[in-house]
Amino acid sequence: MKPKLNDVAQLAGVSVTTVSRVINDHGYLSEKTKQKVFAAMRELHYQPNNMARSLQGKNTQLVGLIFSDISNPFFAELVSRIEKLLFAKNYKVILCNSADDPQKERDYLQMLMANQVDGIIAGAHNLGIEEYQQYGLPIISFDRYLSDNVPIVSSDNFNGGWLAAQTLQQAGADKIAIFTGKSHAGSPTNGRREGYEAYLKQQGLTPHVHELPFELSPALKTMEIRTILENHAYNGVFCSDDLTALLTANVAQQLKLTIPTDLRLVGYDGTALIRNYHPNLTTIEQPLADISTLLVSLLLQRIADANCTLEEKYVLPVKLIKGITA
Amino acid sequence: MKPKLNDVAQLAGVSVTTVSRVINDHGYLSEKTKQKVFAAMRELHYQPNNMARSLQGKNTQLVGLIFSDISNPFFAELVSRIEKLLFAKNYKVILCNSADDPQKERDYLQMLMANQVDGIIAGAHNLGIEEYQQYGLPIISFDRYLSDNVPIVSSDNFNGGWLAAQTLQQAGADKIAIFTGKSHAGSPTNGRREGYEAYLKQQGLTPHVHELPFELSPALKTMEIRTILENHAYNGVFCSDDLTALLTANVAQQLKLTIPTDLRLVGYDGTALIRNYHPNLTTIEQPLADISTLLVSLLLQRIADANCTLEEKYVLPVKLIKGITA
Repeated sequence: MKPKLNDVAQLAGVSVTTVSRVINDHGYLSEKTKQKVFAAMRELHYQPNNMARSLQGKNTQLVGLIFSDISNPFFAELVSRIEKLLFAKNYKVILCNSADDPQKERDYLQMLMANQVDGIIAGAHNLGIEEYQQYGLPIISFDRYLSDNVPIVSSDNFNGGWLAAQTLQQAGADKIAIFTGKSHAGSPTNGRREGYEAYLKQQGLTPHVHELPFELSPALKTMEIRTILENHAYNGVFCSDDLTALLTANVAQQLKLTIPTDLRLVGYDGTALIRNYHPNLTTIEQPLADISTLLVSLLLQRIADANCTLEEKYVLPVKLIKGITA
Repeated sequence: MKPKLNDVAQLAGVSVTTVSRVINDHGYLSEKTKQKVFAAMRELHYQPNNMARSLQGKNTQLVGLIFSDISNPFFAELVSRIEKLLFAKNYKVILCNSADDPQKERDYLQMLMANQVDGIIAGAHNLGIEEYQQYGLPIISFDRYLSDNVPIVSSDNFNGGWLAAQTLQQAGADKIAIFTGKSHAGSPTNGRREGYEAYLKQQGLTPHVHELPFELSPALKTMEIRTILENHAYNGVFCSDDLTALLTANVAQQLKLTIPTDLRLVGYDGTALIRNYHPNLTTIEQPLADISTLLVSLLLQRIADANCTLEEKYVLPVKLIKGITA
């Protein structure tokens, strides 16, 4: 039997009115009360909206987008594309920059789940957000495992890593490093590193893995890259994102390393911004148009039919964009 | 006497139910019907929400953000900052990339006005959107005239243009061009050009103004810049945005012009992205933190009190960021 508002109220030890106010984010409520109500909702797998909406037959025509931060051009282009596609389908988007703040991501999720959106597209960096497991709202994920019933759309990270390493080697590099983020269990982006390692192994070369945390500031990242390049005679570097490749190119210039003669460089992402303003950078392009189209299409399928069968994973092909850095 | 739902219905020649459905964006409605209803609402200055909300005492805790396109790093950083500030005040944002599509901007405005947000922050590029004149919702504008009762927040564009020209001249340039967008009556960004012209005039130098439309693709812009640099012996260029400065630097490299020896270059905007990843570029920084804080603060004042007195214009100081390009 489906849980009722009253069950939530009883378990949380509050009135039905209070539960209703939490769900509708209406009026003053203490953080403690909210947490009690949300905990009870989770425990009972109570889904306010789906029920309320299906009774009323009313959609909000809003979709929540939870991404790390649109200050990063990759997420900016992705969000911009998703917004345009959804607008054409009469949906508007609520934007959440979850940054590196799991609590903000949780707060957003709770607010979005409680009553405001028909679905969510999420591609943030915080892991272990158990709320994704708890609710029945339609969610599609970009490049990140959220929970067993949330489909993941990603580009072919493994092949991208392989292609990057191959490009560096064929351009003449034989001491090839990778600058990448921390690896996380189940994160599809690990594939970039795995592809790089697999290619080097096949060629009898040694992988050199340097983890630069995603949340490190550009200035600190620059310092680390400088130390790495000063202490290793790499002649090829694969950066698992283009912004790190730009920093690496800046450091190479400081160290009087000529690109590509002394150091070959391949990035990853290939946003319009990079292709337009840094045409020299050789990079692996993620198909942002296809990724956005698929994310939106899958979400709309789930909104139309909560029980529709979707794949667990959708992997889209990547493409080498040949600049002059490798 | 305030217009009622019934007055709108009579003028539009539709039923009260239809007007209600248009306002709530609920159920199927033909574009023609919607336009008739919106036209009647405008003519009568009918404001559904303010009335409905003040009766119910209920806010949506949503703010609409209408900006050109977050694919542009300037708007991405601005939107990201605004979102964070509003989140801290328990507001969420609905994002609209109005691109260069006035109809999309109008559609958004109508939807947002009709029933979904407590206020709007707008900084798009489409002009002559009469809807901004028509409704009573709290709106704050960034760097653009919208209507007489909408306060404008901008950075000191005139002083920025002056500072850019002065920096180029003091670095040794005496044939100094400006690459800027089309000028629009009443647009505060014209100030960048006016400041540049005023400084050159004061110094007895001739201004050379080249208008590159904002909406031109980077490839076409690059072609135009190449033609300009090939046909004029400029030794200094002020670009009224940093992205155009990046293109100009790329063209200079193609033409074997050394920066800053042959060509001195100053950009405008100084986003975190530019300062972090292109520290060499000399640019005029808009104070994005202060701009965002002020936009949010003014909007919240207007939301709390629709009749509060605000200035027409708020002008924030800019800052020279000294790289090595000038």
